Amino acid sequence: MDIKHYMTDVGQRARQASRALVKASSNKKNAALLAIAELLEASMSSLIAENKKDLDAGKTRGLDDALLDRLALNEERIQGMAEGLRQIAALPDPVGEISDMNYQPSGLQIGKMRVPLGVIGIIYESRPNVTADAAALCMKSGNAAILRGGSEAIRSNQAIAECIKQGLEQAGLPADVVQVITTTDREAVGELITMQDYVDVIVPRGGKGLIERISGNASVPVIKHLNGICHVYIDDKADRQKAIDIAYNAKTHRYGVCNAMETLLVNHAIAADVLPELAQKYRNEGVELRCCEGSAKILADFATQAATDEDWDTEYLAPVLSIRLVDDMDAAIEHIFAHSSGHTEAIVTEDFSRARRFLAEVDSSSVMVNASTRFADGFEYGLGAEIGISTDKIHVRGPVGLEGLTSQKYIVLGDGHIRT
Amino acid sequence: MDIKHYMTDVGQRARQASRALVKASSNKKNAALLAIAELLEASMSSLIAENKKDLDAGKTRGLDDALLDRLALNEERIQGMAEGLRQIAALPDPVGEISDMNYQPSGLQIGKMRVPLGVIGIIYESRPNVTADAAALCMKSGNAAILRGGSEAIRSNQAIAECIKQGLEQAGLPADVVQVITTTDREAVGELITMQDYVDVIVPRGGKGLIERISGNASVPVIKHLNGICHVYIDDKADRQKAIDIAYNAKTHRYGVCNAMETLLVNHAIAADVLPELAQKYRNEGVELRCCEGSAKILADFATQAATDEDWDTEYLAPVLSIRLVDDMDAAIEHIFAHSSGHTEAIVTEDFSRARRFLAEVDSSSVMVNASTRFADGFEYGLGAEIGISTDKIHVRGPVGLEGLTSQKYIVLGDGHIRT
Repeated sequence: MDIKHYMTDVGQRARQASRALVKASSNKKNAALLAIAELLEASMSSLIAENKKDLDAGKTRGLDDALLDRLALNEERIQGMAEGLRQIAALPDPVGEISDMNYQPSGLQIGKMRVPLGVIGIIYESRPNVTADAAALCMKSGNAAILRGGSEAIRSNQAIAECIKQGLEQAGLPADVVQVITTTDREAVGELITMQDYVDVIVPRGGKGLIERISGNASVPVIKHLNGICHVYIDDKADRQKAIDIAYNAKTHRYGVCNAMETLLVNHAIAADVLPELAQKYRNEGVELRCCEGSAKILADFATQAATDEDWDTEYLAPVLSIRLVDDMDAAIEHIFAHSSGHTEAIVTEDFSRARRFLAEVDSSSVMVNASTRFADGFEYGLGAEIGISTDKIHVRGPVGLEGLTSQKYIVLGDGHIRT
Repeated sequence: MDIKHYMTDVGQRARQASRALVKASSNKKNAALLAIAELLEASMSSLIAENKKDLDAGKTRGLDDALLDRLALNEERIQGMAEGLRQIAALPDPVGEISDMNYQPSGLQIGKMRVPLGVIGIIYESRPNVTADAAALCMKSGNAAILRGGSEAIRSNQAIAECIKQGLEQAGLPADVVQVITTTDREAVGELITMQDYVDVIVPRGGKGLIERISGNASVPVIKHLNGICHVYIDDKADRQKAIDIAYNAKTHRYGVCNAMETLLVNHAIAADVLPELAQKYRNEGVELRCCEGSAKILADFATQAATDEDWDTEYLAPVLSIRLVDDMDAAIEHIFAHSSGHTEAIVTEDFSRARRFLAEVDSSSVMVNASTRFADGFEYGLGAEIGISTDKIHVRGPVGLEGLTSQKYIVLGDGHIRT
């Protein structure tokens, strides 16, 4: 198989399909989404059979249990995919929205129209449900999608792709609106991320390694989600109970997620008041504490570890927390500037002026007052769905929903206007 | 001079200065802009003297007259720079604008806050006024700027930089908010476009060659303005006079600009009615016409050239126009899809449904109905100022004003909210 030739063909088909999609009504796109949902449900047994082949091959290859679990499809997960498609169908269509339409001194009416980006390439790892989710988000936002999943999920992804293809055809849309790459050759990824003529943006979904590899080699723009080293700062003007609730929730609600707190910053004036109770709660959950000198002293009764320089730059994704005392909010902001990954930071304070300054001065995709970092999520933000969380500053920051997959062009309405 | 070391130092200073700028009030930023304007006016004779050294060196190096003209500063041009700074000071500050602030089902208030990108690198060619313009746009939008001008303007740019530095200090802002690179070594550009830790976006201002070179080698995101192959389509439902006025204005108002029309598409049913009068007007201006077979037949009385395939993909930036007859609007859209650079396209029509379709289906940064493509411009669009026109789809499309140099982060306000 000539990979370059194959990928160029995929790219050209996607570009053509994206043009058909621009003209498609919201009703037609929604009809396709609902048809795919039904087809997934109706194909449950064959999807599970194909998935079993992937699982068997994965076991033979010696994949670990966590990976096999992410790879597995069952009735509940297939139902979940179908439900996700129906939710996306129910969201408002972002395409064509006109805003800021004003008359200018020339007499021209000028504003912006929201339009699809065109063709989106999604590169993801083992979870086959991403095939349906990502296809649906791209389609609803008017974009053609080229999907490249993990090689370990190739049969599952092809089976889901078949449902998508049939659903598109039932709704009268070209099957090329969503293409799933059929080769597991790595060269295909290399082509996908450099086909500037056919691909408008790449969204990698997976671990930091995958994302760094992709964005290091891509010439097509990449919407990146690197790591989440999230901070909570407990100010000395914090409400004690809120501080304890938030710091506990932000760490222990889930460990392996990007919006979990990794470092807790505490104003020295309130530390002795909140840390012992918090440490007790963390101990009950088995959270390992890595402390600066000051916090270690306060928590002398607990078996804490000494934090090293490396701790402040580590995304644990595990029941581990680093704790540091700071003199004031400025020192907290300074620590965040030096060590945050720009994902999500929260302050706990009752002080109005400090809250206002923290919101303005902390440069992260989400900045919170008196709320757990765990809320940084497309669903919680009312986006209805999420293709990822961007830690970039360009184009889109934070949770990326349908709007993040669109752009705005200018539209200009005149009556024979010429420039003099 | 160790260029890498020098540029890293510049980058670190810029990053620190950008943090001071985030905290600066609009008044302070405006005070700096107004102070710089006064300093430029007060330094008129020394600016002209430094500029003369650049001009003399340029003449010795054999620079052509057009380039020397772009390089030259005189009282009027310096006055123009100062005026530009005052206009930017008068614009509303985009930083801190909060939008879409709504209560979510969790009870959290969630919305977006407009924030600076951080540090912007501007790479430009001979015109020294860009130093003041670009510095002002970056500063007003809360960004630190690293400016790298053409080597032929190095003394002029340093003299302008001195005024900027003094103005910043007078207003109590760090001088590092705007840094002008003092070396003409090309390696400095290579460093600038790859310092991902210190630079958030690069805006190259210059010819297509410069922009392609920069974006081909940059690892920092680039806001690109490639070429402008702009089309006007005269529909058979066009008002004849509007069609002639717009097609004439879009080509002849100015030739060397990116929003000039390069190809005229004419519905075959109206061609014989509009083309002869238009050709007469173009002939009076000395515009060379390169025609498809059909339009050549209609213009048999004019000395037209036969258009080659290459013509449809050429940005002339000169008194040359290619003309092609099309069967209908779909054929026009098809031609635009195949040959446009995605900058600006216009339709002339009185047909409501076709206007609506053209606006939705043509994928360019500006799409116009019954207006000359020459209006594609930040000032005409009400942006107040423009750092360039983006032909990218990501982040910002079309004329880029202050808002294009910002991003939006999410802000989340709670009352001790935790996720359950």
